[in-house]
Amino acid sequence: METLSPTITCPLDHGLAQVLPDIASLREWHPSDIAEALDRPGNPPLGIIRTLLQLGRPKALEAFEQLSIDTQQACLETGNTGTMLEFIENLEPDDRVDLLKRVADDLRERLMPLIAQAERNDIRRLWDYREGTAGAVMTTEYAFLPEDIPARAALESLRLQAPNKETIYYVYIIDAQRHLRGMVSLREIIMARPEASLGDIMEDQVIAVNHDMDVEQVAAMISKYDFLALPVVDHDNRLLGIITVDDVIDIMESESTEDFHRISAVAPFEEQYFRRALPRLFCDRFGWLAVLLVTSILSTTIMEVNAAILQQMVALAFFIPMVIGTCGNAGTQSATMVVRALALGEICPRDFPRVFRRELVMGLALGCALGLMACLRVFLQDQNVMLGAIVGTALLATLLAANLAGGLLPLALKAAHLDPALTAGPFIATLIDAVGISIYFLAAAWMIRLFGGA
Amino acid sequence: METLSPTITCPLDHGLAQVLPDIASLREWHPSDIAEALDRPGNPPLGIIRTLLQLGRPKALEAFEQLSIDTQQACLETGNTGTMLEFIENLEPDDRVDLLKRVADDLRERLMPLIAQAERNDIRRLWDYREGTAGAVMTTEYAFLPEDIPARAALESLRLQAPNKETIYYVYIIDAQRHLRGMVSLREIIMARPEASLGDIMEDQVIAVNHDMDVEQVAAMISKYDFLALPVVDHDNRLLGIITVDDVIDIMESESTEDFHRISAVAPFEEQYFRRALPRLFCDRFGWLAVLLVTSILSTTIMEVNAAILQQMVALAFFIPMVIGTCGNAGTQSATMVVRALALGEICPRDFPRVFRRELVMGLALGCALGLMACLRVFLQDQNVMLGAIVGTALLATLLAANLAGGLLPLALKAAHLDPALTAGPFIATLIDAVGISIYFLAAAWMIRLFGGA
Repeated sequence: METLSPTITCPLDHGLAQVLPDIASLREWHPSDIAEALDRPGNPPLGIIRTLLQLGRPKALEAFEQLSIDTQQACLETGNTGTMLEFIENLEPDDRVDLLKRVADDLRERLMPLIAQAERNDIRRLWDYREGTAGAVMTTEYAFLPEDIPARAALESLRLQAPNKETIYYVYIIDAQRHLRGMVSLREIIMARPEASLGDIMEDQVIAVNHDMDVEQVAAMISKYDFLALPVVDHDNRLLGIITVDDVIDIMESESTEDFHRISAVAPFEEQYFRRALPRLFCDRFGWLAVLLVTSILSTTIMEVNAAILQQMVALAFFIPMVIGTCGNAGTQSATMVVRALALGEICPRDFPRVFRRELVMGLALGCALGLMACLRVFLQDQNVMLGAIVGTALLATLLAANLAGGLLPLALKAAHLDPALTAGPFIATLIDAVGISIYFLAAAWMIRLFGGA
Repeated sequence: METLSPTITCPLDHGLAQVLPDIASLREWHPSDIAEALDRPGNPPLGIIRTLLQLGRPKALEAFEQLSIDTQQACLETGNTGTMLEFIENLEPDDRVDLLKRVADDLRERLMPLIAQAERNDIRRLWDYREGTAGAVMTTEYAFLPEDIPARAALESLRLQAPNKETIYYVYIIDAQRHLRGMVSLREIIMARPEASLGDIMEDQVIAVNHDMDVEQVAAMISKYDFLALPVVDHDNRLLGIITVDDVIDIMESESTEDFHRISAVAPFEEQYFRRALPRLFCDRFGWLAVLLVTSILSTTIMEVNAAILQQMVALAFFIPMVIGTCGNAGTQSATMVVRALALGEICPRDFPRVFRRELVMGLALGCALGLMACLRVFLQDQNVMLGAIVGTALLATLLAANLAGGLLPLALKAAHLDPALTAGPFIATLIDAVGISIYFLAAAWMIRLFGGA
């Protein structure tokens, strides 16, 4: 088996897209900075591997951990199985499984027998957890102790456990069947009398999450309780792993990014802005824009049906962008607030009646205020009372509909286990366009009949 | 001075809006859960204080810390200065300053002399840091040691420091003038030989931030390096405080929420969805909607100017919602991606040329594809070649403009030190409406001349 060979002395030019400092300076860098420098589009995987090898342990292993999973996969697929083995074994268990899930079956089958027994068992244990659940992001490298040892011995034991654990700042107390009995922080162990037993100082009301809990909820819990880690248990309260706060931060960032993309109808992607290849970005964006374009056939059809009214009063057309624009904006406002509140766990689908009442009141208030403004504006511009009344009424009715749709659709989607962010923004806007134009012409036809009959 | 009196035995009914369990069960709860239960709209501050007093120390102090700043302020303003003093003194230094900045001058002047000397000095030190900077969110309760003591003595010293420090997991090594010399984690101290000096095991390339750095950047750094805390220094590298990861999570959540609100043109607010009072929410939303409504006067004016063309070809009006809707969506897509990338620190205003090239190519590609689709659709629906050509051309030109505006305006705002999220969503959409309608009629007039002349 090949291992890392920091003694290779080839010059620091492995076909990388940018100039790196000499290897001695690079070794002084933080692993995250090294990874950032290597992890650029255009850098060949072989060049990245060679640079890492020159860095030597443990920097190389730490820097590899910080590379994006795409780059890790590209490195693995160069076929340098022997070299890559140590990098893979050093990954956190959950990251290792994510990486192995991505590579082709035959490469994985070649790798698996080479991986050490302990890591292989870990991989099997973690393999079946569904993406997006606590089980899929937890690490199995947690510190644990029995409850009957004194604080002094605990400290000694942690010294030995430390090198292989993700964190030793939270220690979990388990019994022989791995049932979670309690939790004690390293701070409490240090502050305790040396002879106090862990059972006496531990917190026995441990807040834990089930392995099938959604990662977004896990993030909300860590954020609420200010924990550094959260234990993950099975349905029998047996400890399976822990989720650490740094993983939670990554989860929060990617969930927020996903919501931002969905809200603006871009198919969500994980890469950074400049790293997403243009042809793929084109697909992410074109798909939804095309769907929305086709959907807008509704608006066009409604206008064609009402061509007679439009012929009769061409000025009606002038105010269509204003009415549907304003209502689209109001719908987007409600939708965004509700989507965000859902993401932070502030509200849930059960709150439907409360959200309904809230958005009804708000829609009426905003509709009246903005409808009056619109009416006044039309009158000032055209001195046409009927047109003003039509536009004002249409705006009120449309805004009410937009506001309710914006507030309630995300709840409905959440209840149906779909991503609420899908509804916000452009989708609401396109729907509102059609509904808005219909209401506009209905109001117009009604008013023309009314005023015409007077 | 009054202190906490857990012996009061009045029943657990202090006019709170909901039923709480008996005090014994409540004492078993996590402080964050107690705070969540107390922190409801409608709960009178006096009722909250009485419930806390019944809980006794330290639960009462910990729960008070987790209350929202609005509720803390309401409690403080009940005037029970003596009772509140212990709660205030127990707050983290940065939260204490935030709270004291909110209350009226005379209440603050009554409180200040009562606060212990050490805390008072802290308040003075933290008072002047500008909101949104590292200095304003840091805590001064960090663990520090000199570099020449051995690991065994360090552990002993940390045991004594622990009760008054926010974290002892990261220990900062400073000299007599408080210059930051190095950093060592408690894990490394525990793993080190007991006689090894801290100077030998410390990391001397400490990654620190300046007190005037933007909190959003601080959050990005903690997230990149997976730190539990980040030291804050002045321009002479003297240690001022630390920012811990749990504060960073709160910062990330509130910055993301702010961006979500801005993107959908709601004036950002900090409360949870149901907690924001409706009249205030009305103002948050009405303001921007009204501005956007008035802005849409542009679109109307442009259509009125082109009334002659519209009279000539009423069918033109049918496709306006489709063209401006699609282009608004595309502009929102670009804007959202760039705003998010800016927030995560992936790009900066210097990347203007690269973003320009990217959005130009993307705008052309999307414009051609969607323009062709639109053209085809118009033709299938109306069998009118000229109308199809007008709509297709207008869509291409508008989409290109929308895409560039969406991608570049956030960068321009960022360069001008304004919030980039302000541009995304409705603002882009309203601007695009006007530009789109202009281009639409320009294309129409040009095509009519061209085909009419043929």
